Amino acid sequence: MAIADLARDNLHVPAEVTSLIAEYAHVIDSGRFEEWPNLFTDPCLYRITTRENMDRGLPLSIILCDSRGMLLDRVVSVRTANVFIPHSYRHMVSCIQLMESGDNEWRLRSNYLVTRTMPDGTMCVFSTGEYRDHVVMVAGEPKFKERVVICDHSMINNLIAMPL
Amino acid sequence: MAIADLARDNLHVPAEVTSLIAEYAHVIDSGRFEEWPNLFTDPCLYRITTRENMDRGLPLSIILCDSRGMLLDRVVSVRTANVFIPHSYRHMVSCIQLMESGDNEWRLRSNYLVTRTMPDGTMCVFSTGEYRDHVVMVAGEPKFKERVVICDHSMINNLIAMPL
Amino acid sequence: MAIADLARDNLHVPAEVTSLIAEYAHVIDSGRFEEWPNLFTDPCLYRITTRENMDRGLPLSIILCDSRGMLLDRVVSVRTANVFIPHSYRHMVSCIQLMESGDNEWRLRSNYLVTRTMPDGTMCVFSTGEYRDHVVMVAGEPKFKERVVICDHSMINNLIAMPL
Repeated sequence: MAIADLARDNLHVPAEVTSLIAEYAHVIDSGRFEEWPNLFTDPCLYRITTRENMDRGLPLSIILCDSRGMLLDRVVSVRTANVFIPHSYRHMVSCIQLMESGDNEWRLRSNYLVTRTMPDGTMCVFSTGEYRDHVVMVAGEPKFKERVVICDHSMINNLIAMPL
Repeated sequence: MAIADLARDNLHVPAEVTSLIAEYAHVIDSGRFEEWPNLFTDPCLYRITTRENMDRGLPLSIILCDSRGMLLDRVVSVRTANVFIPHSYRHMVSCIQLMESGDNEWRLRSNYLVTRTMPDGTMCVFSTGEYRDHVVMVAGEPKFKERVVICDHSMINNLIAMPL
Repeated sequence: MAIADLARDNLHVPAEVTSLIAEYAHVIDSGRFEEWPNLFTDPCLYRITTRENMDRGLPLSIILCDSRGMLLDRVVSVRTANVFIPHSYRHMVSCIQLMESGDNEWRLRSNYLVTRTMPDGTMCVFSTGEYRDHVVMVAGEPKFKERVVICDHSMINNLIAMPL
């Protein structure tokens, strides 16, 4: 979508939206996973897919959750399964762009980069890609009605323990 | 330039500018190269140089385009030459700062980090550095009159296939 | 702190603050270290610690400066000691979120990622983590009353020459 297609008065990304996007990152990066489902509406759509799938028009998802309950299941499995070595993420989100806006709802895209730090201090760029979000206001609070994570790569299927 | 030198009412980076900077990243990262020249005025200045050159006051450029035609030439060569392995970029842009503003024009700088993902999923930080932009409004749309890319490193001369 | 706890009219991060955060990055990344202390009030608090220390409630710091004089001492040591190979940093800062705001003062957190580039062009992700800032206006200019840097990792104690 070219900027030309957007109304000039629609370019502004409101503070409610940037704050929600920031909160999402901080919730995960500080390990407050239990708060993560509350950033979504219920029902909702949280989906991780790859750029390759998107380019080919494939509806395949690496992860798909359509309710807070499913999101919470993921959190519980992170907390209890513990099959992975404890590590932490750090999200960088930039190039947030408003695609469409309506009455208290916004469609946006942004770029993300997530680093992973292991207990021994080893750090790597874990995932990069794009977020496509649908944000709505619910009782005065911004929530993700939809967050689609499009990874630039396709080799992390069995590595994703925590949400991206 | 210290913040003290800037008028307080000039600190705000307008939505037109942040949207253009975001659009630039999304155009490249999603492979819509043909739209890239349209983000510039005609004539324009698109220049890639290195921090070392800037520090030494050298006018050398790795790449210099001064019209949409030249920008388009680069796009065509990316599309047809195909001497490089297809890969994708992901841009992170932050610390956007207004340096000067006039009537519908703004001079800004920002930091960028570009990752590159290869078809086999290998990912690396490909380039970091600074953008120095001159953005103007043309027929109600923001355009780059000038974008100077100052790379922190100097070893990518023959690796730059796609625009940074 | 959940978004629910924040007043809706408090979500907006003012331009004074984002500009200060950007200036901090540009001052360091362009090697203008002598300007760095002037971004703080006097007295101030500049502290580097680790996530591990924070999680355990340990008050340990890797670096702690509580005045412009101490900040300047660090700058002088960077300039004169020269025990390290000259290199440059590049800061990415995102997910800036307002936590509290008062009369001309703001408490914020944000995520950072710093890359390091060596003279031979070698680049790496040097540090990731969180900034916790207390910004105040002093004579019409935004200043850090407090900047706490919480690194995701704990192995860089003897590698930190320049400020993060």
